[in-house]
Amino acid sequence: MPKAYLAGPDVFLPHVASIAAAKIALCARYGITGISPFNSDFAAGLPAQKLWRQIYEDDVRLMRESDLIIANLTPFRGASADAGTLVELGWFLGQGRPVFAYSNAVEDFAARTRAQIGVLPDPLPGIVVEDFGLADNLMIAGAVEYGGGGRLYRPEDGQARAFDSLDVFERCVAAAAALFKTTTKACC
Amino acid sequence: MPKAYLAGPDVFLPHVASIAAAKIALCARYGITGISPFNSDFAAGLPAQKLWRQIYEDDVRLMRESDLIIANLTPFRGASADAGTLVELGWFLGQGRPVFAYSNAVEDFAARTRAQIGVLPDPLPGIVVEDFGLADNLMIAGAVEYGGGGRLYRPEDGQARAFDSLDVFERCVAAAAALFKTTTKACC
Repeated sequence: MPKAYLAGPDVFLPHVASIAAAKIALCARYGITGISPFNSDFAAGLPAQKLWRQIYEDDVRLMRESDLIIANLTPFRGASADAGTLVELGWFLGQGRPVFAYSNAVEDFAARTRAQIGVLPDPLPGIVVEDFGLADNLMIAGAVEYGGGGRLYRPEDGQARAFDSLDVFERCVAAAAALFKTTTKACC
Repeated sequence: MPKAYLAGPDVFLPHVASIAAAKIALCARYGITGISPFNSDFAAGLPAQKLWRQIYEDDVRLMRESDLIIANLTPFRGASADAGTLVELGWFLGQGRPVFAYSNAVEDFAARTRAQIGVLPDPLPGIVVEDFGLADNLMIAGAVEYGGGGRLYRPEDGQARAFDSLDVFERCVAAAAALFKTTTKACC
């Protein structure tokens, strides 16, 4: 079964354990082994300078073991996706491993950015707002489109989902499974 | 001369052309060819759906031509660095090409995140604030430390710089040049 690294700000949620388990179970229904960066084994009490490196090394190890990424790009603490998730997305693109992603939001990046600037003004006047009618920055849209995932999955009915909703994730998993099934057929 | 991809939200600045030229000139003083993603040739008037793909393809082409990345990770429209820059940072990490980065900010990620949440509340209660005393999300700190750059360069005197200031960038360029000089010596 292909292994999918389940990136996202899910790791910061108070109910991360149940979300990770639900995602792994959904993946299994589509013939994919979900690999969650959530690891409850990390030693509490480790000094911060050791702990963050341990998490980083563990995440990169899991990424290396994975055949593809399925990233939660729901905007997180700003107009764009979670920062760590974006580094991981880029890593898979750089490795030439398929990039799949979804978002529970429906508004375009430009609208979210303008709304945010209204509350937290830019550091200098005249900074451009990127506006291509995309779900996020064009490097993200490109990473997904050119990286194998085809498109960033969003709610089809135009209704934003709760931050931790999983129905759009499931559509994304189904698409990833279909790609791997096609790939397998094509090569054998 | 090693080629450095000069990633950053600089491309959104109203004076992007002069900033790009100044960065390229600084790189040249240290024996590095600066490659800026800023390209004034992009056809105005192209439909958005063509234009963003043209920019994406051009950026990836420039990244492929580059030996390393020097990324401007000054927080941009949120507590973290620019979203597109983070995808590019991850790409270089995934490619095994050296990752150098700087920020003109001095506050830690956790302090910035808490300040932002005070203005733009989280979508759910209880979401963790990552707090390891780092300049940004741990995947970013790790990408720079493990990716060859050693550390994320920040103002040494603890004084935040203007968003478009270049003195911290110059220290980062000097460090990148030193790495490539060492690498050249070691291999010949």
